[in-house]
Amino acid sequence: MSQREQSAVPVVAVVLAAGFGTRFDPNNPKQLVSVGGKPIVCWSIEAFEANPRVTDTVVVVNPQVRHAVERLVDQAGYPKVRMILNGGAERVDSTAAALDALAAAGIPGDAKILIHDAVRPFVAQSSIDGCVDALDRFTAATVAFASTDTVLLTRDLGDVKVVQSVPDRPQTFRAQTPQAFRFSTIRRAYALAAHDPDFHPTDDTRVVVDYLPDEPVAIVAGSETNLKVTTLADMPTAERIAADILTQRR
Amino acid sequence: MSQREQSAVPVVAVVLAAGFGTRFDPNNPKQLVSVGGKPIVCWSIEAFEANPRVTDTVVVVNPQVRHAVERLVDQAGYPKVRMILNGGAERVDSTAAALDALAAAGIPGDAKILIHDAVRPFVAQSSIDGCVDALDRFTAATVAFASTDTVLLTRDLGDVKVVQSVPDRPQTFRAQTPQAFRFSTIRRAYALAAHDPDFHPTDDTRVVVDYLPDEPVAIVAGSETNLKVTTLADMPTAERIAADILTQRR
Repeated sequence: MSQREQSAVPVVAVVLAAGFGTRFDPNNPKQLVSVGGKPIVCWSIEAFEANPRVTDTVVVVNPQVRHAVERLVDQAGYPKVRMILNGGAERVDSTAAALDALAAAGIPGDAKILIHDAVRPFVAQSSIDGCVDALDRFTAATVAFASTDTVLLTRDLGDVKVVQSVPDRPQTFRAQTPQAFRFSTIRRAYALAAHDPDFHPTDDTRVVVDYLPDEPVAIVAGSETNLKVTTLADMPTAERIAADILTQRR
Repeated sequence: MSQREQSAVPVVAVVLAAGFGTRFDPNNPKQLVSVGGKPIVCWSIEAFEANPRVTDTVVVVNPQVRHAVERLVDQAGYPKVRMILNGGAERVDSTAAALDALAAAGIPGDAKILIHDAVRPFVAQSSIDGCVDALDRFTAATVAFASTDTVLLTRDLGDVKVVQSVPDRPQTFRAQTPQAFRFSTIRRAYALAAHDPDFHPTDDTRVVVDYLPDEPVAIVAGSETNLKVTTLADMPTAERIAADILTQRR
């Protein structure tokens, strides 16, 4: 338990709920869709509410859903939610908005920041714990799940793609979230990236890997159930996972 | 259609049904489990029976299921199934057994060989066609599906894994099957690999990529529904896909 006592710094969850989800129902943004009778964004916020090591939560929304999310947060009265912020056009813009707001709020550089996609409603408590612990040894960590399929890296050859290489399967992972960083580390990576006009990562981990290559990013064990709800086709699986979780809690 | 007329060579499907499936029910090997009322291995054999461009099928089994598979093939009377062969301990041993049998049967070097995992019962006809077509331009091709998740390549750092690199998402694919080769190409790759004591690939494409690096392997479009049935947890999804296919056929 000594590791836990070391973590007397703020542990801030940033829940990114700004995606517009063009692959989903445009009239009902996916982060507001209910599974197991509860909006997806609420599942995600509650994962951090339930974890005693997380001290604060910031929710990043887009203006179209801001009112709806504010109402959900007010109704539930989540005690850790400190701010609801407007995000930007892309994922990295939303992360950057959260980092700026945290800096303005005077968060210390050694605070632990856990950036989570709201559309991963079923993140395991063990994965959140794993992120907080990993930041005692590393400045960056990401939840990831070992790939059960062989991954192929490709290149373009005229109008077709051909295989460039086949990495060893035990070294291939599928990134999940949370992705976790000491605050000063992710701030520095984003500051460096801001000067690069070609900067369009889909992933916060990649910002650190690309701009701070000397900082190793630790892998934290994810889970098969840490599903990303991307399309309507994901809903039956999401409902099944939600039903399993609600049964276990009973 | 001129492309199709060029393909007057044998097109041989090799259905690998030799896996023992330790992650599945050991008393009921996964290739014999029924989905949509039909054993998984039959779904796979029938995918090639249904494709007019495939001329012959070879089924590779392990001795424990040989009798059961022979009975299923006899009952259904699949006209393209020419041989049921015993496979080996590992996937590559089963492929090698099939290649040796095809050589003994006098299959020409320019024959098109489509190697398919029996536990992918729902392979699309368009993917089979794509393999046959790709072999008019390339000596090797593989069905693969674009990764929707960011892939992380890792390395070991002491007792943990850390991120080594984050490949561009548009160049990351999850390998599926069939994997398709001109017969002389896959024979040559396996002959070279046989001299390498460290040879343990989980994938036939990798044999070509590693041992014949100058032969580009084309990517053929796979599908989300080309599911690999690996564990019992895959069965609800498999049943849903089977039900969808059976509804469409009605």
